[in-house]
Amino acid sequence: MAVYTDVGEEELGAFLADYALGNLLSFKGIAEGVENTNYVLHTGAGYFILTLYEKRVAREDLPFFIGLMQHLAERGINCPQPVHRQNGDALGELAGRPAAIFTFLEGVSVRRPQVAHCAAVGRALAGLHLAGRDFKLHRKNALALEGWRALAASAGGRADKVMPGLAKLVEDELAHLARHWPSELPRGIVHADLFPDNVFFLGDQLSGLIDFYFACDDILAYDLAICLNAWCFETDGSYNVTKGKALLSGYFAGRGLSADELLTLPLLARGAALRFLLTRLVDWLDVPPGALVRPKDPMEYVKRLRFHQRIDHARDYGLAA
Amino acid sequence: MAVYTDVGEEELGAFLADYALGNLLSFKGIAEGVENTNYVLHTGAGYFILTLYEKRVAREDLPFFIGLMQHLAERGINCPQPVHRQNGDALGELAGRPAAIFTFLEGVSVRRPQVAHCAAVGRALAGLHLAGRDFKLHRKNALALEGWRALAASAGGRADKVMPGLAKLVEDELAHLARHWPSELPRGIVHADLFPDNVFFLGDQLSGLIDFYFACDDILAYDLAICLNAWCFETDGSYNVTKGKALLSGYFAGRGLSADELLTLPLLARGAALRFLLTRLVDWLDVPPGALVRPKDPMEYVKRLRFHQRIDHARDYGLAA
Repeated sequence: MAVYTDVGEEELGAFLADYALGNLLSFKGIAEGVENTNYVLHTGAGYFILTLYEKRVAREDLPFFIGLMQHLAERGINCPQPVHRQNGDALGELAGRPAAIFTFLEGVSVRRPQVAHCAAVGRALAGLHLAGRDFKLHRKNALALEGWRALAASAGGRADKVMPGLAKLVEDELAHLARHWPSELPRGIVHADLFPDNVFFLGDQLSGLIDFYFACDDILAYDLAICLNAWCFETDGSYNVTKGKALLSGYFAGRGLSADELLTLPLLARGAALRFLLTRLVDWLDVPPGALVRPKDPMEYVKRLRFHQRIDHARDYGLAA
Repeated sequence: MAVYTDVGEEELGAFLADYALGNLLSFKGIAEGVENTNYVLHTGAGYFILTLYEKRVAREDLPFFIGLMQHLAERGINCPQPVHRQNGDALGELAGRPAAIFTFLEGVSVRRPQVAHCAAVGRALAGLHLAGRDFKLHRKNALALEGWRALAASAGGRADKVMPGLAKLVEDELAHLARHWPSELPRGIVHADLFPDNVFFLGDQLSGLIDFYFACDDILAYDLAICLNAWCFETDGSYNVTKGKALLSGYFAGRGLSADELLTLPLLARGAALRFLLTRLVDWLDVPPGALVRPKDPMEYVKRLRFHQRIDHARDYGLAA
């Protein structure tokens, strides 16, 4: 959530000369995107988002991310669409970083999602999964089981500083997931980070999906399990079954789940909770002293993990019979 | 340069209900403004800037700042114009802070000003001084002699950590300025911080002045002396007399200077250099360890101060005979 790279108007002007977007009218660095630097750009052709890719995003992944947004936008998904340079490329270089320009999406992210928002997200997620089916590029999920193990090792015994017993809880959960993680469920392109921050609404209407920089190939129902974690818990930690039902029904309207996917949903939800528990835990432990930004509390996801551990069947998430 | 206050769409929606600006379409926190939190706001009525006033801006000064922008905009100065609420007020409250909405100014700030930019800034500054003449509110300059003394005391002997001898240089300069600071020069509303960051251009054309949060009553020619410091030195520390001439000529085209003002200009420029030297020095010394943002180097202004100390007459700034 920062402007890591300061861009001058001269170099931006030179960068824009390779596009057919008219004159530069204004640009402002925005506090959006954890991994990259983003600017709102106003040119003679309208409003756009300019993204500079910082080191945390691997350069070799950029064709996947940019190609995916292009692919999805062409199939009617409201996501940022890369703007092509006059030579046909979507990716250029600015201030020593890979950089691209995207269409500007209207809408605002909601801090406290309501039932209607959850239903809309379910529908949009199914739409994204269907639209991704014929995408030709691939990217491994760096935050799957193997990545979780690395994060757990990095936290190590320090996890107990957050909560006594947390290191053991993580270790046991990892062992359980490693034993039971499914290998036969339908796979495809997943967003992998479809939190309320990354979904725009105009009123109850979903107007856009953003931030595809965790997108990868993985189990489709795992993406749904991430959304259950991200959208259906209240701030007091309780699961809202009405929101869960809305999210699942919204998804089913676009893409049905097989019996195996339904059966595995609680396990996938445990994996999703552990994934966010671990990244938050490591961020929490690694925050430099005196930092202005307090990272998100990993304990939220300890609670969610424990909730999923007690779930026997997908119907407990609010699934209609 | 940060978003200090996070605003949710619900509370922003409630805030906007008091305006006649149509529906909220998007809002994004921007990295603009050192003292406040700013958002780019898109509503059915267009693009605006939403400003939340953080603690560093005194609440009792807000009617002055907002009233001044309104006053100047009504007199043809391109500056952010406060948008009134349906009850007629320009100031409201959002997320526990005083907040106001302003018109959006097109243009970009230039990192390396050229001669044409300096000429345009001179003209704009004179225009601002003339337009401010009949403004009814008043605000003392908190960063005049008395404020400089307080900053110097706060830095104290620590100044020598930046450069051996700096504490003594500051002390001597303060004594010199206190003895010679003029009391009879024309006064009025000054911007007091018209740096390249705060001026927008579309090509060579000046399109807007922003950030009036240091504006106050002071010697008009002191504002011009600030601009000489801010616009006419090269990155290697040298004074560019062509830019100085352009800035001064631009100013004169709008408002002539008296013989006394001309005579005092080198002294005023010394005061301006010391003012920015001191605020940068204190920021530099007080930066918390591990902070991400390195404050601006106070040494730049040590060099400028020494330059002005050697100037005998305003003609040395490039003044035409």
